[in-house]
Amino acid sequence: VSTLSWKGSIFLLTDFGNSDEFAGVLRAVAAREAPGARVVDISHEVPPFDVRVGALMLERSVPHMGPGVVVTVVDPGVGSDRRAVAMSVRSSDGPGFLVGPDNGVLSFATEVLGGADSAVVIPPARWRPDAGATFDGRDVFVPAAARLWSGVALAEIGTTIDPATLVRLPPPQLEVLPGELKAEVLWVDRFGNVQLAAGPSDFEVAGLGHQLWVSRSSSSTTPQAVNAHAAKASSSFDVGDSLGLITDSNARVALVRQQGSAATVLAVKEGDVVVITDRRPPS
Amino acid sequence: VSTLSWKGSIFLLTDFGNSDEFAGVLRAVAAREAPGARVVDISHEVPPFDVRVGALMLERSVPHMGPGVVVTVVDPGVGSDRRAVAMSVRSSDGPGFLVGPDNGVLSFATEVLGGADSAVVIPPARWRPDAGATFDGRDVFVPAAARLWSGVALAEIGTTIDPATLVRLPPPQLEVLPGELKAEVLWVDRFGNVQLAAGPSDFEVAGLGHQLWVSRSSSSTTPQAVNAHAAKASSSFDVGDSLGLITDSNARVALVRQQGSAATVLAVKEGDVVVITDRRPPS
Amino acid sequence: VSTLSWKGSIFLLTDFGNSDEFAGVLRAVAAREAPGARVVDISHEVPPFDVRVGALMLERSVPHMGPGVVVTVVDPGVGSDRRAVAMSVRSSDGPGFLVGPDNGVLSFATEVLGGADSAVVIPPARWRPDAGATFDGRDVFVPAAARLWSGVALAEIGTTIDPATLVRLPPPQLEVLPGELKAEVLWVDRFGNVQLAAGPSDFEVAGLGHQLWVSRSSSSTTPQAVNAHAAKASSSFDVGDSLGLITDSNARVALVRQQGSAATVLAVKEGDVVVITDRRPPS
Repeated sequence: VSTLSWKGSIFLLTDFGNSDEFAGVLRAVAAREAPGARVVDISHEVPPFDVRVGALMLERSVPHMGPGVVVTVVDPGVGSDRRAVAMSVRSSDGPGFLVGPDNGVLSFATEVLGGADSAVVIPPARWRPDAGATFDGRDVFVPAAARLWSGVALAEIGTTIDPATLVRLPPPQLEVLPGELKAEVLWVDRFGNVQLAAGPSDFEVAGLGHQLWVSRSSSSTTPQAVNAHAAKASSSFDVGDSLGLITDSNARVALVRQQGSAATVLAVKEGDVVVITDRRPPS
Repeated sequence: VSTLSWKGSIFLLTDFGNSDEFAGVLRAVAAREAPGARVVDISHEVPPFDVRVGALMLERSVPHMGPGVVVTVVDPGVGSDRRAVAMSVRSSDGPGFLVGPDNGVLSFATEVLGGADSAVVIPPARWRPDAGATFDGRDVFVPAAARLWSGVALAEIGTTIDPATLVRLPPPQLEVLPGELKAEVLWVDRFGNVQLAAGPSDFEVAGLGHQLWVSRSSSSTTPQAVNAHAAKASSSFDVGDSLGLITDSNARVALVRQQGSAATVLAVKEGDVVVITDRRPPS
Repeated sequence: VSTLSWKGSIFLLTDFGNSDEFAGVLRAVAAREAPGARVVDISHEVPPFDVRVGALMLERSVPHMGPGVVVTVVDPGVGSDRRAVAMSVRSSDGPGFLVGPDNGVLSFATEVLGGADSAVVIPPARWRPDAGATFDGRDVFVPAAARLWSGVALAEIGTTIDPATLVRLPPPQLEVLPGELKAEVLWVDRFGNVQLAAGPSDFEVAGLGHQLWVSRSSSSTTPQAVNAHAAKASSSFDVGDSLGLITDSNARVALVRQQGSAATVLAVKEGDVVVITDRRPPS
């Protein structure tokens, strides 16, 4: 990683919410420590302590970022001995550095960006000797990101560690069988679209056709019909008025309804597993 | 429209919410495609798919913007054959360009800005060949806005169309009679203020005086008294403790309560029609 | 205060929410009136009209801001004869100016910043002669802040007043007795942490030890045990699985649970008073 001065953004993704001043204080500290940096809020509404949801949001976001440093704080272990880390990534496209707790929240994005090139543990810091260590976003992560943004070398930010020791989350659940596919629900978005841990090619491998049935894995309710021009459709308008499958904007397969919530119809939430089959259920 | 380089902001108004990363990705793409641009979030909390509410928010916002390009994405038809459009406006004051779906969401603001000078249809774009066309904010609208911000001529962004073909929303409902006024509720804000599709002059034309009665058009409940020093009052303090009428900060007439919600008292919501009269209801 | 041009941010803290365009219009006006200024949102989710909560958020935020002008709008009295004020502060570190309504919302932060050096009343302003005076954030406070940011002298912004006449909120409730401490709940954050109007030294003065009991002042329920390595612990991990006391990131004492909500367990909200004692309740 070059230590030459370079320009880019400081990106922020946290579970701090927008009601308290937490996110605002991060923005203020970034502005103070890196007065020339653009600060880009990705979101502060990761559900509290939900490392997996944060990791998935980050994975979906990094391909669209320009150069810069990404700070991700979803940190149920703040104040414990979990490590605070910063890493440079292999991809020369997009953000060059990721900063956050070493609890797996960075792991999916790291993989998207080609893996970690090198990594360091950031030492604790306190803004006042008498204040507690409960706000590492403000006291550790953003200050470290500001230094990286300013061109300070990664090795000067902390103690070098083997990137192979960085915590990784288990991969999303996906099982592809002939005529059947079981996939984790990765994301239910504001509009009720249900993103699955599967791509169009997984449907091809399973040999799934145009008329499918979907149900929640743990549910005993009757599977619902799905219009599966599916993995080939590219918008909810291609599936008409029924429940449909499309390839979404992250190149994953999603269950959708036209201007309606597929999640409500299916009664699924993030982390559930759905079963999709071409075998018509007994009626 | 001059193609000279000029500076200004990229303004964002969407129904994407703040919980997912949608709005954050728009900000990231704007930063990547127009590194020198200031990005100003107007709001991302337009109710999902509510084109009319989005159009009214944009109409109220544009008079306060400086130069720049406005991207508005309230787009229930994403993925259908609705057109993606960009236009330059006649007013030389404020933002020079509006970008968004051609579903009417831009129409009220276009009128406020003096009408469209010229307009183009923006061609579809995909960030990855294998990804779906469900996120035009990221893939079409913000990239187009970034090019306009950078000084690219409107005609180079897409195919020129006749501005007269741009979709317009029906105007707000307003009926002014002697001693009576029926007006659409345009906006119930966070504080419960009820903005009407009427200005102070409409009350003058109707000959409405200082003591009025208001009810929801479709309601059979007894009309409620309104202190209508009204259209001339300029704050809720001028109406005392009762329900009052004031001229609000958009120069429209609003039903208000001092530090309370007029919307709750009246049980009205956006899109309702209220009837205001000077005839005391039978008791 | 020097009138030399200087750089910094315009910070925004309001109760406008993020659903309407209010906050977005403030950002747009700041961008238009001070095109070179960075605009930093602290939060727009102060509960509507809650001056005290806004004052506490501002107090906690200002120590982390760099140079600039802070605009705070929590303003139940907009349109009344309450004063609109701007002041310069004594501290040369951090923001140099505070702008907002003179209702006490600035008072705690002013004290943190060393007190007001000088102050002015800002005259009313209207963006259109026919519009009401209900949006001083847009029409008065942000334009004044933009002028201060641009280097205009405070005395040119309005009429000089004696800083001693600025409205102050009553200090938080705190009573320290031998073996007992009564303290106001200043803040219940998104994670359910309960910040008290007490610091670690108050616990020392009260002679409170390691095993304490806490209850809501007005409640008749049995006090709950608290692990009070307490005021000396610096994260929820130091208190184990029980309810604990830590010194939080603002150097105040907070009631916490590890990855859980202390506020829910204690059934307390902001403004409540809790009693903490070392006397075991009768069982």
